[in-house]
Amino acid sequence: MAPSLKIGIAGLGTVGAGVVRMLARRKDEIAARIGRPIEVVAVSARDRNRNRDCDLSGVAWFDSAEELAASPDIDVFVELIGGHEGAAKAAVEAAIAAGHDVVTANKALLAHHGMTLAKMAEAKGVGIDFEAGVAGGIPVIKALREALLGNEIARVSGILNGTCNYILTRMQEEGLSFDICLDQAQQLGYAEADPTFDVDGFDTAHKLALLAALAFGVQPDPDAIHVEGIRTITLADLEAADELGYRVKLLGVAARSGEAVELRVHPTMVPKHWPIAQVSSVTNAVAIDGDAVALTLVGPGAGGDATASAVVGDLCDRAAGRAGTPFGWRVDALRPAGKPTIQRHEGGYYIRLAAVDRPGTAAAIARHMAEQNISLESIMQHRRGRPHGGDRADSAEDPAPVVLITYATTEDAVRRAIEAIDADGVIASPPQVIRIEKD
Amino acid sequence: MAPSLKIGIAGLGTVGAGVVRMLARRKDEIAARIGRPIEVVAVSARDRNRNRDCDLSGVAWFDSAEELAASPDIDVFVELIGGHEGAAKAAVEAAIAAGHDVVTANKALLAHHGMTLAKMAEAKGVGIDFEAGVAGGIPVIKALREALLGNEIARVSGILNGTCNYILTRMQEEGLSFDICLDQAQQLGYAEADPTFDVDGFDTAHKLALLAALAFGVQPDPDAIHVEGIRTITLADLEAADELGYRVKLLGVAARSGEAVELRVHPTMVPKHWPIAQVSSVTNAVAIDGDAVALTLVGPGAGGDATASAVVGDLCDRAAGRAGTPFGWRVDALRPAGKPTIQRHEGGYYIRLAAVDRPGTAAAIARHMAEQNISLESIMQHRRGRPHGGDRADSAEDPAPVVLITYATTEDAVRRAIEAIDADGVIASPPQVIRIEKD
Repeated sequence: MAPSLKIGIAGLGTVGAGVVRMLARRKDEIAARIGRPIEVVAVSARDRNRNRDCDLSGVAWFDSAEELAASPDIDVFVELIGGHEGAAKAAVEAAIAAGHDVVTANKALLAHHGMTLAKMAEAKGVGIDFEAGVAGGIPVIKALREALLGNEIARVSGILNGTCNYILTRMQEEGLSFDICLDQAQQLGYAEADPTFDVDGFDTAHKLALLAALAFGVQPDPDAIHVEGIRTITLADLEAADELGYRVKLLGVAARSGEAVELRVHPTMVPKHWPIAQVSSVTNAVAIDGDAVALTLVGPGAGGDATASAVVGDLCDRAAGRAGTPFGWRVDALRPAGKPTIQRHEGGYYIRLAAVDRPGTAAAIARHMAEQNISLESIMQHRRGRPHGGDRADSAEDPAPVVLITYATTEDAVRRAIEAIDADGVIASPPQVIRIEKD
Repeated sequence: MAPSLKIGIAGLGTVGAGVVRMLARRKDEIAARIGRPIEVVAVSARDRNRNRDCDLSGVAWFDSAEELAASPDIDVFVELIGGHEGAAKAAVEAAIAAGHDVVTANKALLAHHGMTLAKMAEAKGVGIDFEAGVAGGIPVIKALREALLGNEIARVSGILNGTCNYILTRMQEEGLSFDICLDQAQQLGYAEADPTFDVDGFDTAHKLALLAALAFGVQPDPDAIHVEGIRTITLADLEAADELGYRVKLLGVAARSGEAVELRVHPTMVPKHWPIAQVSSVTNAVAIDGDAVALTLVGPGAGGDATASAVVGDLCDRAAGRAGTPFGWRVDALRPAGKPTIQRHEGGYYIRLAAVDRPGTAAAIARHMAEQNISLESIMQHRRGRPHGGDRADSAEDPAPVVLITYATTEDAVRRAIEAIDADGVIASPPQVIRIEKD
């Protein structure tokens, strides 16, 4: 049997300890299957004395992740510290400088510094693998980097943040408000005390930046992505979507658009019968539309075990000698992702307006839509207060919710129409706009 | 750039010609991404003069697949001839003997002769890749062989035959009989003139044999699999399933059962909310339940483009130097799969009986179930002739359909109970038994 692959792990939280346990549990089988054992020879973490429920006997302890990363005793450095600056970045740079392959779950680090790190790695002839960084246990990096190379990819879209999908699912299924569901997510440990990173779409954007590089050869760049979160989604939207045959999901979408790549993260209405529409709770899903194969992958997007599984998969690849460039292309072949192009987005739109209940309102709305050449597929005007406003008694002052579904149009046209409607003073509060994805 | 990977393709049908076209179309990108071009240097097929809509200029032509396979001018032999004996087998053996890696879409060949061929390949230090052989464009081999190595797999199950799923979907959605839907499948080219191989479950069994090897380390062996097809499924079954919250799918299931692996192919009732239940028409799906990750992969199971995509994926792996053993284990580590163990299968059952309409029938049925310690979750007895018998007028002689759903029990108990009920003379025709898969 070939000599063992020696790894050093920085960060022994849920994922790090999970990797140590998984490698111990699967030791013999992994060695038998890839012809070579994988051995944890060194670790580092903040607190040496914490009980982590994993056997670290015989494993060298480093107080500094950076020193561990530079250690000549390891072949692969596993970075599970997190954060896109500070210790994680310094340690990954040290590992590359020392000629070690890197395996990481850190999408923020790669989304922000992927180009720099990939360039360093290329110069040193080492790899950076990050299957664990996108959609947790779903092997989507492997699919894009290896399995689907015969395909020209037209679109990659996915539910990439379990926190948001949990909240939207709870709202949909239980009829609870965003705030209550966020609170529940926090209690269950699905959301951080400060949920901004998840619910405002930034986490999804980081993952999308990495998928876009692999699928389209664009440089990972969070600033190239139009990002909206789910805070503004109300029960009224979910109910209207349901009535119209849709589900609302926070999607990350990377789509070829002529020579450019459209990159966007926002709440999206998807037809109920799409596999992705049926993905509930913290589960993630990625749909890849290639010219030969359309693939949907559904699985756990987070959690210690699922993330550890992805890390161990990457380690097995390295141990077996399977290697690739970090983003599936040589660094100099990656082209800039450009600026967000959401203004040019074309598609159908769901628009919910709180219309002032007075004569001429509907006419004004319809006129402004027509002026922007927007054709309407449907207009739903519900009796005031019901069903989208709860079951309180009607009142003449209540604005009446009007839901418009447009045929394919442009973001620009929609925004201009809404501006004009707003200027007429016929809507009582900011309108809700949700983009629709369709067959 | 490294020298090109030189391939020879035997069989230029839809898939073979598709591979040639895909490699031409994706030439530059594949070379850029894996650092090395893939070049078709030789082909063979039965009819040299057929128009295949692909450019074969400069490509050597062999009349014999076996001679092509043995040619010193190729690195990888791509076998797309089909059939598990004859030319395909001889050519693959010749390729291995000549020291060439093999890429094939031929599940029948590997299901029947996988052990022999893997042993030969191991001795010669070459690979056999067959992503295209199972679930077409879905990279399930890669998932099991590489990505999920950190997992102990408990179960792999899937819709692995598009023909059967097309027929069952049509029956369900249009309310048409098996025969009519089979006829439509044949007209659309989804089913062969002799549909036995597909509708009787053998194709699914071949694929399952390969998945079982990868997931559980058992030798591929079609004789180890209990196989039932979909010919006996009636509209009445689909309607009853629908009412009970299920869909009927032809599943291949490989499940760990103590030290053994239970291998079975049969129509199965799965809860409607399972992702796999919602996979319709010719689409395939595979669900992998690991101890860390539960993954569902959905995509095209057949078709020239999808199959070509899988072949090209395998070729890219070889070109990039990514290699593995054919079944994910050394040959001598694979253990015999044993005999089919369906008698010991435990689970819920759907049983539809055409009960003779006379006093005491229900009591007799219930008594025989009780005698085998089978608990019933529900009994549905429909008015004779409706809804499961169409809308013809009731007649005293019509047997009354009785549908039983059991709690978890054993195959053995169910068979004994039905035998006893039959001996009582209270059922008018052979009973329908469909196994249920549940959370």
